[in-house]
Amino acid sequence: MSLKPVNVGLLGLGTVGIGTLKVLSRNAEEITRRAGREIHVTHATARNLSKPRDFDLSGISLETDPMAVVSQPSIKVVVELIGGVEQARRLVLAAIDNEKHVVTANKALLALHGTEIFEAAQKKGVVVAFEAAVAGGIPVIKAIREGLAGNRIEWLAGIINGTSNYILTQMQEAGRDFADVLKEAQSLGYAEADPSFDIEGVDAAHKLTILASIAFGIPLDYSKLSVEGVSQLNVRDIAYARELGYRIKHLGIARRREEGMELRVQPALLKEGELLAGVNGVMNAVMVKGDAAGPTAYYGAGAGSEATASAVVADLVDVVRTLTTDPHNRVPHLAFQPHAIDPLPVLKPAQYRSAYYLCLQAQDKPGVLAQIAKVLAEEDISIEAIRQKEPKAGAAEVDVVILTGKVDEGRMLQAQRALESLGSVNKGITRLRVEHFEQ
Amino acid sequence: MSLKPVNVGLLGLGTVGIGTLKVLSRNAEEITRRAGREIHVTHATARNLSKPRDFDLSGISLETDPMAVVSQPSIKVVVELIGGVEQARRLVLAAIDNEKHVVTANKALLALHGTEIFEAAQKKGVVVAFEAAVAGGIPVIKAIREGLAGNRIEWLAGIINGTSNYILTQMQEAGRDFADVLKEAQSLGYAEADPSFDIEGVDAAHKLTILASIAFGIPLDYSKLSVEGVSQLNVRDIAYARELGYRIKHLGIARRREEGMELRVQPALLKEGELLAGVNGVMNAVMVKGDAAGPTAYYGAGAGSEATASAVVADLVDVVRTLTTDPHNRVPHLAFQPHAIDPLPVLKPAQYRSAYYLCLQAQDKPGVLAQIAKVLAEEDISIEAIRQKEPKAGAAEVDVVILTGKVDEGRMLQAQRALESLGSVNKGITRLRVEHFEQ
Repeated sequence: MSLKPVNVGLLGLGTVGIGTLKVLSRNAEEITRRAGREIHVTHATARNLSKPRDFDLSGISLETDPMAVVSQPSIKVVVELIGGVEQARRLVLAAIDNEKHVVTANKALLALHGTEIFEAAQKKGVVVAFEAAVAGGIPVIKAIREGLAGNRIEWLAGIINGTSNYILTQMQEAGRDFADVLKEAQSLGYAEADPSFDIEGVDAAHKLTILASIAFGIPLDYSKLSVEGVSQLNVRDIAYARELGYRIKHLGIARRREEGMELRVQPALLKEGELLAGVNGVMNAVMVKGDAAGPTAYYGAGAGSEATASAVVADLVDVVRTLTTDPHNRVPHLAFQPHAIDPLPVLKPAQYRSAYYLCLQAQDKPGVLAQIAKVLAEEDISIEAIRQKEPKAGAAEVDVVILTGKVDEGRMLQAQRALESLGSVNKGITRLRVEHFEQ
Repeated sequence: MSLKPVNVGLLGLGTVGIGTLKVLSRNAEEITRRAGREIHVTHATARNLSKPRDFDLSGISLETDPMAVVSQPSIKVVVELIGGVEQARRLVLAAIDNEKHVVTANKALLALHGTEIFEAAQKKGVVVAFEAAVAGGIPVIKAIREGLAGNRIEWLAGIINGTSNYILTQMQEAGRDFADVLKEAQSLGYAEADPSFDIEGVDAAHKLTILASIAFGIPLDYSKLSVEGVSQLNVRDIAYARELGYRIKHLGIARRREEGMELRVQPALLKEGELLAGVNGVMNAVMVKGDAAGPTAYYGAGAGSEATASAVVADLVDVVRTLTTDPHNRVPHLAFQPHAIDPLPVLKPAQYRSAYYLCLQAQDKPGVLAQIAKVLAEEDISIEAIRQKEPKAGAAEVDVVILTGKVDEGRMLQAQRALESLGSVNKGITRLRVEHFEQ
């Protein structure tokens, strides 16, 4: 069974628009293996088509008038990435009216006009997907809306504005002033030329409006939130909080209380060691407490070209699956279509490569440490740290703890055998891998 | 539009089975508002029906023969929670053969017989949903399979066995021996009477088999994994690792390398401050690195009656949505059915209640601190910590930093006004909330 490609019209060729084209093109094969059909961006629009862009746009019909794309009969899905509110609203409503599905990253649009837009979509039987509107690449909309569907949600709290979190992290780590860090964030492209949406909490409040609605089943109502940004914070308070064992973070909080909902965006102190206190730089995280699941958390990049594109493409795959209603066009059990599952070779442990922790019991006499170091050197294994512990009273042996650099497991096994045959070292050395995961 | 309730047959009335009944019953209204129709458990089975159970089973037809439920014509979805492999396999295949959808929490079954089961389901056009099989209440299957569908996954790494993590956390924090902690974990119900599946890494390997398949599009093949448990670890290594700034965690790791896949379950050292190093007790977490989304992480309870039930119910809601194919039976835009969105009252800031950080500039003279303390006492605000900073050279004022206990915001505002009118304290006191989120 092979379905025709789905034609997509892309409104906006900014950072996220270009990121979306890159991801769709680079991962085309992988995406088709999952979705069961190809996703083709056939049309795209931008105000200025002659601006140089970091993607080869040949093969895509380019327009300056987005309305022309929204009414293009061959297009099944419109991706709205132009931002702003009024024009985006007109375009999304027109797309819906033309019975096209919509994918959007526009939180302001949904926080302010979501009710109107979703009603229109419901009437026309189309989907408006918006995973990219909150917390970039983190699939937190899906987690709350579907993954926690059995729960009564008690609260949610999140670091949902990367610019504010970047500024606070810098103020904290480098003791730098707000204005100083903001200027740098603008030059790095983390903050807009007009940063007020970010630093006054407006962007976070748009996102919290959406999260609260899907978590608690309440209407989208931006006007009900209590909103403070980070612009009033100073380095002194960050330093004092730190002395007391706290971090200051900018949070969106929605909590169900007996008397009603707390819906607020504001900086607050969190004790070191709390999950959200450890979320730094431009990263985002959302915690959600369900009555059955208990506390859960979702962490990742909250903004950026490809992180946001990741959510846009996931929504495209979801939407593509709604285009036909046959049972073979559902989410595949194992994520990839059954015929597209591919047995990659699996490595043997001897082919792994990692750093190691070793703990040896060595005879407590001169020259033993030199012997150990020589064996490791012969296998070209670097020593990152070595500690010889005090011998226990009356013991003839001491523990030697070593952290090595990265090495192929085969080499490490060879070295271990050589160490164990030294005579001055015990058999059965403890050997554990040292791992590091980018975060 | 009102759809008929969906009838469900539940195989197994153990911890998770009873948890599922409790969640479905307690959150019935909330679940129906999301799913658009009611979910009724009409039949249930257990080996011993006379065992006392913490749920009123009246209204459910009880059977000792699960095959009778699997072939019951009125049942649309079978929930398999009996565990084990051989009997579960026969029942799940029979359910599929009878064209019933299946929800299961059985990782061993899927890791060993998933290929056969999903092929059968595919042929009959039914869904086998298994969110509950990995990481309990964390919707990580959905996150990888759908939320990251646009990514080429580079690696994933997770703490996916709560028992092992509980044991390691206890060994680390209390310096206790493996055998000692294991015995306690068994008495607390965190570890089975035969704990070998958990402590030898078999359970984590079943889960990693499933995660690797959906992340990389490779077949389920448990036999290809390299597996070590925590039973060989001793307190000495945990202490030495800690001295070097590391934690030992039991990890499942799947990594794509040019030469092939690394698929391994083993204890490893992680530097303090790494996300996975901070996951303690029975909590689980999975990190996933996609080429577009970058690193993302998913955290929550990996086991337990209601946490696992949360995933079972989410799967039931997903499956119920596949029963009709009309566009009105999709995932609702705002999680809840449009007619079921309910405007809960939103509290005003004066109604919030929290602890506070205050920073005041006070005149550096005797009695001022006493005045401040008196004002707070008059509003019944407790002082958790107070620090008077050294005055800056030549300054007539000192910073006074205060952490308060929990108080209604109205009271705090009253106190702030009183402090600011003391004369000895500046106007414009810095006031920030102190938050704490259960994790």
